[in-house]
Amino acid sequence: MPHIQLPEGLPGISGGLAFRPEMAKPMRELAHVLLYNPNTLSSADRELIATYVSSQNDCYFCQTSHGAAAASHLGGDEALVTAVTRDFLHAGISDKLKALLVIAGKVQQGGKNVTTADVEGARKLGATDVEIHDTVLIAAAFCMFNRYVDGLATWQPRDAEMYADMGKHLAQHGYMISSAEMSAEILRRSAEK
Amino acid sequence: MPHIQLPEGLPGISGGLAFRPEMAKPMRELAHVLLYNPNTLSSADRELIATYVSSQNDCYFCQTSHGAAAASHLGGDEALVTAVTRDFLHAGISDKLKALLVIAGKVQQGGKNVTTADVEGARKLGATDVEIHDTVLIAAAFCMFNRYVDGLATWQPRDAEMYADMGKHLAQHGYMISSAEMSAEILRRSAEK
Repeated sequence: MPHIQLPEGLPGISGGLAFRPEMAKPMRELAHVLLYNPNTLSSADRELIATYVSSQNDCYFCQTSHGAAAASHLGGDEALVTAVTRDFLHAGISDKLKALLVIAGKVQQGGKNVTTADVEGARKLGATDVEIHDTVLIAAAFCMFNRYVDGLATWQPRDAEMYADMGKHLAQHGYMISSAEMSAEILRRSAEK
Repeated sequence: MPHIQLPEGLPGISGGLAFRPEMAKPMRELAHVLLYNPNTLSSADRELIATYVSSQNDCYFCQTSHGAAAASHLGGDEALVTAVTRDFLHAGISDKLKALLVIAGKVQQGGKNVTTADVEGARKLGATDVEIHDTVLIAAAFCMFNRYVDGLATWQPRDAEMYADMGKHLAQHGYMISSAEMSAEILRRSAEK
């Protein structure tokens, strides 16, 4: 049960965002810019970074929903998403993304853990300054989102189909949509089946 | 030296924000809503929560700038800010704020650490659901801001007067102002002395 009286029926972060719309606006916009807007890093890569950090923070809702968004961007390759969260150094992803995930993992532990060698390593594999910046900020932002979702003890249903639908929706439309709109969309998809 | 080529002469988070304006916008707006907009928790209390979390994350720039903003809201009481970061349970603040700082400290460690007893404790001392929500989100957001500032190895000058000026400026105007505007304002204040 959530620690405070959140609107019912809205899973994970949606409950908190619906409770405080004035704070939801910049948080949605930040997620949208970080994960969905055009970027030299694909949305799949950025969602994998978000999923990996969320798994390191042990946030069920975030790792499952962003894992589903990553899988949707990857044409349904859920196995690759699982491989990244379990042991990304041996997953079927580019060496550049592996180097960025090293940086993201350091940020998750604490910003000071990122070393010059980590950054040089990513740069040698083709990462630009903007991509390194965005990796640091995605990792940092998910240290916020994960703590927000778990710090309120939000409702996090175990319903694989719901997360798969949410992932498709996020991959297609991004993060600027309100909780109510997303719930309506998920219900519509369910009804279509 | 920063890990990537950030605009020079902008301390701490300002360098990162100037490097990526599209991401700066929602981050500034989030800080403004969390710390500056009207709230039943005073800006002093919210800046103290931000300062405490930043000190627990050992982020020099954030704890010093937000500590200065808190002191400015408190009529210049820097000793109280220091007391909160060192041992808030024995600082001269309300029992309600102490209970909220307990929650913030748990969130800093990880969202799942917040217990029903922590929340009940704050509620018994008069904290509302909105205040508990906002405390969780301020603590979570500073786990992002701190990691962003240190993960990029931003320039964090040791210049007490600069932070005092910045604190006054943030306390007065909030967080929606751009780095360039803030730099101009700080230079103007320096010139006036």
